Amino acid sequence: MYKINDNYQKLPGSYLFSTIAKKVNAFTAANPDKSIIRLGIGDVTQPIAPAIIEAMHKAVDEMGQAETFRGYAPDLGYDFLRNAIVENDYKSRGCDISADEIFVSDGAKSDSANIQEIFSVDNKIAVCDPVYPVYVDSNVMAGRTGVYDTEKETWSNVIYMPCTKENGFVPEFPKETPDMIYLCLPNNPTGTTITKAQLQEWVDYANKVGAVILYDAAYEAYISESDVAHSIYECEGARTCAIELKSYSKNAGFTGVRLGYTVVPKDLKCGDVSLNAMWARRHGTKFNGAPYIVQRAGEATYSPEGKAQLKEQVAYYMKNAATIKAGLQDAGYTVFGGVNAPYIWLKTPENMTSWEFFDYLLENANVVGTPGSGFGPSGEGYFRLTAFGTYENTVAAIERIKKL
Amino acid sequence: MYKINDNYQKLPGSYLFSTIAKKVNAFTAANPDKSIIRLGIGDVTQPIAPAIIEAMHKAVDEMGQAETFRGYAPDLGYDFLRNAIVENDYKSRGCDISADEIFVSDGAKSDSANIQEIFSVDNKIAVCDPVYPVYVDSNVMAGRTGVYDTEKETWSNVIYMPCTKENGFVPEFPKETPDMIYLCLPNNPTGTTITKAQLQEWVDYANKVGAVILYDAAYEAYISESDVAHSIYECEGARTCAIELKSYSKNAGFTGVRLGYTVVPKDLKCGDVSLNAMWARRHGTKFNGAPYIVQRAGEATYSPEGKAQLKEQVAYYMKNAATIKAGLQDAGYTVFGGVNAPYIWLKTPENMTSWEFFDYLLENANVVGTPGSGFGPSGEGYFRLTAFGTYENTVAAIERIKKL
Repeated sequence: MYKINDNYQKLPGSYLFSTIAKKVNAFTAANPDKSIIRLGIGDVTQPIAPAIIEAMHKAVDEMGQAETFRGYAPDLGYDFLRNAIVENDYKSRGCDISADEIFVSDGAKSDSANIQEIFSVDNKIAVCDPVYPVYVDSNVMAGRTGVYDTEKETWSNVIYMPCTKENGFVPEFPKETPDMIYLCLPNNPTGTTITKAQLQEWVDYANKVGAVILYDAAYEAYISESDVAHSIYECEGARTCAIELKSYSKNAGFTGVRLGYTVVPKDLKCGDVSLNAMWARRHGTKFNGAPYIVQRAGEATYSPEGKAQLKEQVAYYMKNAATIKAGLQDAGYTVFGGVNAPYIWLKTPENMTSWEFFDYLLENANVVGTPGSGFGPSGEGYFRLTAFGTYENTVAAIERIKKL
Repeated sequence: MYKINDNYQKLPGSYLFSTIAKKVNAFTAANPDKSIIRLGIGDVTQPIAPAIIEAMHKAVDEMGQAETFRGYAPDLGYDFLRNAIVENDYKSRGCDISADEIFVSDGAKSDSANIQEIFSVDNKIAVCDPVYPVYVDSNVMAGRTGVYDTEKETWSNVIYMPCTKENGFVPEFPKETPDMIYLCLPNNPTGTTITKAQLQEWVDYANKVGAVILYDAAYEAYISESDVAHSIYECEGARTCAIELKSYSKNAGFTGVRLGYTVVPKDLKCGDVSLNAMWARRHGTKFNGAPYIVQRAGEATYSPEGKAQLKEQVAYYMKNAATIKAGLQDAGYTVFGGVNAPYIWLKTPENMTSWEFFDYLLENANVVGTPGSGFGPSGEGYFRLTAFGTYENTVAAIERIKKL
């Protein structure tokens, strides 16, 4: 009789966003007259920029003609996209990254979940707390996280690096040495980040202790402060210790288009084994390339028109972020993030738990956010609002919250 | 110091198709005047059908307008596509499959590589020999295959089920009981298949011994004989033992569009654990849905126009298959497949090895095919030609081979 992967059985029952969906559905059913504003899930609302739409139409037409039809894409991505990435995301920032270190994928969620596969199950992971749940969950599935403590909501074999207002949301080097360090900067859910100098310390630390940094830069386009790195490869020594994960979901609104990429430098080696070669083998065996049409969409994000349109789109969402932040501060909330990222992280009032505040906000303001505890134990007592709604909804939501 | 997944180091050096590419490139460099015809890799050449192009243009336009823009797709696929799959691929064939048993993905290669994740590493796999290399390679990466014998080119912990002309390419129940049985029917690379009655025996066997069948039906659209099942769920009892993997790459030319789906019936349980729930959790954690545009393309394959156009496309390739088969038989070759699949499997002449015949054909006819030994040890002495070229190239290639 076949057996299953028992690690799946260790996962706590319900996924954060499905619990939220259930609560919202129940509320809507009971209150059909109430209009709900959703600032919960980090999904974009603005349409795809015209330059990208045009590029996709052109690519669709190419697929319909024998002379320009494209079959299987190169496993690791088309050169036109990989070269555009190198020029625009790396060379322009002085980062030494070449096209054969870029692996184009169907999105950063897949990559950030799959990247752990090329590492030993004996490795110990460290994560910021709170953080995007996929890092831990994918490691649970692989059997790397030990036993779950249902009371503390922590795994015995995971190093948690608390990021709270007490330490200014800057993760500290853990007491126990980790093998794999997940850093999501700017951070989801807190919307905070660290300076380039602080990131350099992490790179130095990883090189010193022989750890690999899995650097999720999904929110890079939202960085507004000049002392914050847009890529970990701006730091000296990152080529020997860091893998960078990038997404088009948030900078170009591609959540439903699906495109991302991962950078694995050729200098990143475990003994004499190249992690670049391992990830290439993983891609070649388990993935068959991102769609041609979508890769052309990705290329269009780097055209002069594309860049200008996306700059506007990012500004639109960051105006929302500023609106939320200022509005909540006016209403007396303690608020973080929203400067280098499209997330606002607020301290729940009157020591409410994250879920208590979720229910309070849903019932009294008909606004949906995300309970901080869903992102890790140190998220308890915090709450996330996203800037990805429409401006009109964002303003309306803040007005409602102010009136509470 | 972090450690890597050592299983990757066990993989034999070079992937079949990259070795072929290197040999072809070397030949072309040395013989720039020769025109090469490629009937090697199983990639389609006909453009995407007009009904699908139209659907994609419409979906692209929707993504460019705020009112119709779509963000994250449902993890498991849009209802419009899952319902179309149920109606057209299952209900129409009398198969009892519901929409919540369909998991839409970015293609069958990803699914066929990822599906092993939900099973225990202690399970023993059985594969047809020869077969699509991804099944074995993905299990090597997971540590399920034991030690590689470089001479025999087999893994110590894999059950090989030879499919050769001696047994009519029908896999026999193995002596040792497997836990996970990979069946690719119609088969890649042999282009042969088994009858529905023979498939029923496999379903009965799996239910009896407690094995799960991973049924890859990527070439289903090419089935022409009436006693061959289009889905394993046409067999009684398959809902308790089989997962089915489906691709749009070959029936709709989606190799560069990327779409597939996997069926995990709710009756498929290991003890009281639902494999449907496990795969849903896998999808939800490690995947973020197929692109909206691509899912609309998938839906269009089921429209009356789409169906008619794809029927023509399949007929085009099958005319190639018939041309190859008849031509090779005229030239005195022993030939298999090509009736229910777009692959022709030929016995190499004069006891040449597969690679000897590859070189012979490349040098003397300037035709590229695929050495059978690349698909497994029992593929030695065989050779694969695909029907996915243009008709003109296919005719020209056969003329060249006939003249040898």
